[in-house]
Amino acid sequence: MMSHGPETLLLDLFAIFLAAKLMGELLERVRVPAVLGEILAGVALGPYALGWIHPSDTITSLAEIGAIFVLFNAGLETSSGDLIRVGKTALLVALAGVFFPFLLGFGYMKLIGDLTTESVFVGAAMVATSVGITARVLADLDVLSSELAKIIMGAAVFDDILGMVMLAVVAGLADTGGVEWVHLGVLVVEAAAFALFMILVAPHIVRKMHAGVERLSTRNAPLLVALAICLLLSWVAARIGMAGIIGAFFAGLMFADLAPRWNLLPKAHAINEFLAPFFFFSIGAHLNLKLFTGGVLKTALVITALAIVSKVVGCGLPVAKRGWHTILGVGVGMMPRGEVALIVALAGLNAQIVSESNFAIVVFMTAVTTILAPPILRCLLREEREAAASSR
Amino acid sequence: MMSHGPETLLLDLFAIFLAAKLMGELLERVRVPAVLGEILAGVALGPYALGWIHPSDTITSLAEIGAIFVLFNAGLETSSGDLIRVGKTALLVALAGVFFPFLLGFGYMKLIGDLTTESVFVGAAMVATSVGITARVLADLDVLSSELAKIIMGAAVFDDILGMVMLAVVAGLADTGGVEWVHLGVLVVEAAAFALFMILVAPHIVRKMHAGVERLSTRNAPLLVALAICLLLSWVAARIGMAGIIGAFFAGLMFADLAPRWNLLPKAHAINEFLAPFFFFSIGAHLNLKLFTGGVLKTALVITALAIVSKVVGCGLPVAKRGWHTILGVGVGMMPRGEVALIVALAGLNAQIVSESNFAIVVFMTAVTTILAPPILRCLLREEREAAASSR
Repeated sequence: MMSHGPETLLLDLFAIFLAAKLMGELLERVRVPAVLGEILAGVALGPYALGWIHPSDTITSLAEIGAIFVLFNAGLETSSGDLIRVGKTALLVALAGVFFPFLLGFGYMKLIGDLTTESVFVGAAMVATSVGITARVLADLDVLSSELAKIIMGAAVFDDILGMVMLAVVAGLADTGGVEWVHLGVLVVEAAAFALFMILVAPHIVRKMHAGVERLSTRNAPLLVALAICLLLSWVAARIGMAGIIGAFFAGLMFADLAPRWNLLPKAHAINEFLAPFFFFSIGAHLNLKLFTGGVLKTALVITALAIVSKVVGCGLPVAKRGWHTILGVGVGMMPRGEVALIVALAGLNAQIVSESNFAIVVFMTAVTTILAPPILRCLLREEREAAASSR
Repeated sequence: MMSHGPETLLLDLFAIFLAAKLMGELLERVRVPAVLGEILAGVALGPYALGWIHPSDTITSLAEIGAIFVLFNAGLETSSGDLIRVGKTALLVALAGVFFPFLLGFGYMKLIGDLTTESVFVGAAMVATSVGITARVLADLDVLSSELAKIIMGAAVFDDILGMVMLAVVAGLADTGGVEWVHLGVLVVEAAAFALFMILVAPHIVRKMHAGVERLSTRNAPLLVALAICLLLSWVAARIGMAGIIGAFFAGLMFADLAPRWNLLPKAHAINEFLAPFFFFSIGAHLNLKLFTGGVLKTALVITALAIVSKVVGCGLPVAKRGWHTILGVGVGMMPRGEVALIVALAGLNAQIVSESNFAIVVFMTAVTTILAPPILRCLLREEREAAASSR
């Protein structure tokens, strides 16, 4: 009489978690970011390949909660104080790195006759650099303190926020089911206002309430307050027509300055380690590799090429007078797309506003840019690496 | 077109998390264990009172995963090495503290004409002392190093394991829908074998594989391996007819010795902090306070009285020759029931093998014993407290 449910749920949880982490470990060993392994696990075990796991409603919900924690963590690792200090160059790099990829992606999709909504989706997914992957590579190379790395990191963070604004717009589009320019304008203003409020005002609110939080009797009160606000802002963001994860990102940003004092990072990471694999696995499980033939494969390759060129050119432009080394370093550093692109894609697919082929194209583009960036960056930054090593 | 689902899910997550933690904080301030606040939040907002939140399938699944982490944490804080060393007194206290409550609970329920299965359920729920609450009170009083505290803690841990075995039997009963004595025997042997294997053999396996785990390339590999094994053992336990959480408890036990070296506790706690409230809230949401009239209220009061008396007498018996102070100290220290009783109750309710009234009776008994134990213990242990203070 014990229902069949819990047992199946437990098996699904175990199989997904194990497969994702095993594939992650394998790829990590050949120096490919682990997140791609988690996606591949989903491709392999999901309904389009082996068909062992058909994500249930619960798994889909866990994936959504996982995406929220991925973005909460990204925000937590981004200091809004640094953002304000980081200077014009990084902001210009970020703006150009958003404008060119979106324009090229959107333009090409329209050119080959796609719908405006679909084209906006693909363009938006090409925008956001993965702060996580870039930071990881720079840290592995031990060059985080170099001038180049500072520009890249600053730009990647701004770029993430711009990506969030794009995502808000995309989620808003999904709501209305098409492009209405007035509505679009409202969304852009709304998203920008939300972003500015969260960057400029929210950290002060946190600073004001921090003594109160530390006086609470509950164990781990700071973590609990941060989690509650993360859930609240996720809901608020979804409620006013943006994507929930935007709220999660800004909730993280709000607590970034207090994270070391409250030791939030290892704790938020732990929750993330458990939940994020369900998100990345779901991405893979939605990916139909059989779609990659003829036209779709061609489009995927073109979009990927555009995603690479547009970031290198776009991000290189504002630093053009610093010479080729800097242009290429910044451009390649900004190349890897990541979680944000995938979240844009999955949101679009679930809202049935992006086709399976365009979903597959976005995931392909994300995977290729993420795989290519680390080795190229490793070659390009040899100079900085030697300088860092000899200064010790 | 963005479906209504994610928004509702986010609101539910936020409301449940906030309500549970707020009520926890309030009760914590008047020195009542926070877990009761989380349950009360469920009672208040759940379908039987305000009716604001009707737990969805996703919330129910999150509650199940939450229960798994509650037990994983309990296991992680229990060293199997300590268990083997702790000696005869603690084991005798634990055995007597299991035997008497079960006998009295089962006997009384049969006496008033309940079904055998229901009576077994109520008896089983009266067995397990909450290690968490007892340890918390003893630590708050700063008497953890006293002889009395050592007996209580050792017994509480054994008692938890015996409670797990009882739970395995109960879950097995739920499967077959009634008491078959042969089946019952098989289950007891199975559960005992599982427990012995996990206490005596599994920690050696972990010790053998620990160098390998530390060589893995994945960040946080020890946590991930522990989580994977937790999910695996939960599924195995459910598969062979016990409750999933038993596997989770033993998975925690397996890693208890390595937990400090791998810094597992704060990380497992963080996951627990996020997921456990959904479990305790669910408990409350299933509780119909309107049932507490006439016969049910009387039974609840009698069962609670029996739960108190049987622990004090049962656990006091093996230490009888040490005098009243020790008898009462050990007895009251073993009094608070907790998570395990609630999990037994919810498992029974979900399997439709325990009635809503008996579920309500078990939750009532758990709440009262948990509320009463800390203040009584505080009075009783004044002597130990002064000794501990003057020795500093």
